[in-house]
Amino acid sequence: MSLTLNTPLDMHLHLRDGEMLTHIAKSSGKTFSGAIIMPNLVPPVCTKEDVLAYQERINTAMGEEVFTPYMTLFFKPSYDKAFLSSVRDTITAVKLYPAGITTNSEGGVSGFDVEELRPTLEAMSELNIPLCVHGETNGFVMDRETEFASIYERLATAFPKLKIIMEHITTRSSVDLLGKFDNLYATITLHHLLITLDDVAGGMLQPHLFCKPIAKRPEDRDALLEVALNAHPKVMFGSDSAPHPKEAKEACGCAAGVFTAPIALQVLAELFEKHDALENLQDFICTNAQNIYGVRPPSKTITLEKIPFQVPSDYNGVVPIYANQEIAYSIV
Amino acid sequence: MSLTLNTPLDMHLHLRDGEMLTHIAKSSGKTFSGAIIMPNLVPPVCTKEDVLAYQERINTAMGEEVFTPYMTLFFKPSYDKAFLSSVRDTITAVKLYPAGITTNSEGGVSGFDVEELRPTLEAMSELNIPLCVHGETNGFVMDRETEFASIYERLATAFPKLKIIMEHITTRSSVDLLGKFDNLYATITLHHLLITLDDVAGGMLQPHLFCKPIAKRPEDRDALLEVALNAHPKVMFGSDSAPHPKEAKEACGCAAGVFTAPIALQVLAELFEKHDALENLQDFICTNAQNIYGVRPPSKTITLEKIPFQVPSDYNGVVPIYANQEIAYSIV
Repeated sequence: MSLTLNTPLDMHLHLRDGEMLTHIAKSSGKTFSGAIIMPNLVPPVCTKEDVLAYQERINTAMGEEVFTPYMTLFFKPSYDKAFLSSVRDTITAVKLYPAGITTNSEGGVSGFDVEELRPTLEAMSELNIPLCVHGETNGFVMDRETEFASIYERLATAFPKLKIIMEHITTRSSVDLLGKFDNLYATITLHHLLITLDDVAGGMLQPHLFCKPIAKRPEDRDALLEVALNAHPKVMFGSDSAPHPKEAKEACGCAAGVFTAPIALQVLAELFEKHDALENLQDFICTNAQNIYGVRPPSKTITLEKIPFQVPSDYNGVVPIYANQEIAYSIV
Repeated sequence: MSLTLNTPLDMHLHLRDGEMLTHIAKSSGKTFSGAIIMPNLVPPVCTKEDVLAYQERINTAMGEEVFTPYMTLFFKPSYDKAFLSSVRDTITAVKLYPAGITTNSEGGVSGFDVEELRPTLEAMSELNIPLCVHGETNGFVMDRETEFASIYERLATAFPKLKIIMEHITTRSSVDLLGKFDNLYATITLHHLLITLDDVAGGMLQPHLFCKPIAKRPEDRDALLEVALNAHPKVMFGSDSAPHPKEAKEACGCAAGVFTAPIALQVLAELFEKHDALENLQDFICTNAQNIYGVRPPSKTITLEKIPFQVPSDYNGVVPIYANQEIAYSIV
């Protein structure tokens, strides 16, 4: 059986920089037509020059792959309308991190005072720049995303024309928010459709499945699956694929992130087929994102064959999900 | 400031076997007067000969330390009254593991059919042999202990004269059970008084704090602290100190267990002092256990001084809690 996907998009991707970028860029470039590129480098991407230089490094790393990096800025409340106007053509979104919430987010937002954020968010709203948000508080690890709901509600209410993307949602409470505010959207990762906290810490401890937000309860995963498999029009695929060197993931005190990029499409095909929802996969991995963001990447056709594929132990020293295991689909 | 503790007891301890036993036995022997010794060796301790031989190996490993190993059998529903009578003098309790629930528990109980367990548990009840239970189902990792409550209720009701020790409780729901059944008791570890899931997986992933049952929510820890600091008469200290080689803890797919034995008393003193409850520490680490189990180990006096102690990076290759950190009390 073969399956053709048109112009798949990854609406949340970490490509890192330097040697790591070189090592893993093509893992996305081979199967995706484009991706929203996260700006949490060290230092973060905060100026037009940063954006253009990073975009250039990504294009170099991609080589011959047809791949559009949709660039983002690391949100700062100091961005004014003049600045945002000047970068409008070079970016697709602005990514907001609460301070210290995940990898390289130390320079993020502390407190969510609407009036403090108003000049920047109103300018973004007027310029039609979507706001991507890592929605977690600093609370208890299983509650962080649910606790953040009130901040989403405050932002969505205060800036009704601002498109707000709830990134990598993991809870039923976040799914429920989609129906409450017209301007809230969401990305969902592959791994949060597959695993719960049980897979991370229910048997042996599995560092390669440790991520932020942490995988939640079975009923949360079920809620995510429901909107993904139905390709809810406000939901898009965003892998949050986040490479760390094998040594860093398997060390004591391992960093958060699951590397899924090279096999994301294949595993999504297997998952959607298992749930008899293959007809919705194209919307989940492309059409919804095109509608929400208005992006139109160059056409790219990916063909999957139902031929078992043995996932490598690592891709240039980065261990992927399902390393050394067999998955049902191959890219041909 | 100095603090004298009399005859401290650890009512839940893993001493392992072979080289590991030799390496870590004195970590307990130096500060405790005795301990309930877990029987989950490979193969488990199931016969009188097993018990006596293991006891002998423990005594050899302890050398000159004054330490009483209170031996246990690995529960099997096949134990009959004749067998239990024959081992009564060599054991202090029988430990029940649900099958596959933790390290070396593959031969444990599947299903909890009261009638199937009745002959063994009635014989134990008549012989006044306490039943120690690892109370977790195979459900979602954060719910396993709470789900097990109905099994505790069933056992406590069916065998009202059987002393049932809920081992290493981690939830408010388990604390609540103490008040509902006269024959339910509990051990509480040091680490479950200190950490929540946040400490294991809220920041970087911390394999040395990964244990079963996994650390739960802040409100669960608060409930444990309340009964421990008040030395609730049905609650005893049981470290569940569980050594694994450093390499095994820091590997991908690390085993469950926190090694606390060598500094447990010192850290308990610091914790009880912080909460202005030092006057209850003696009951928590000795008197309650003596009353519940009726054990009378040889007297042993441990003196702690409020002198900072730098916890080593490891004890013979086993990484302790607070490795390389400073704690407030030293053993003198």
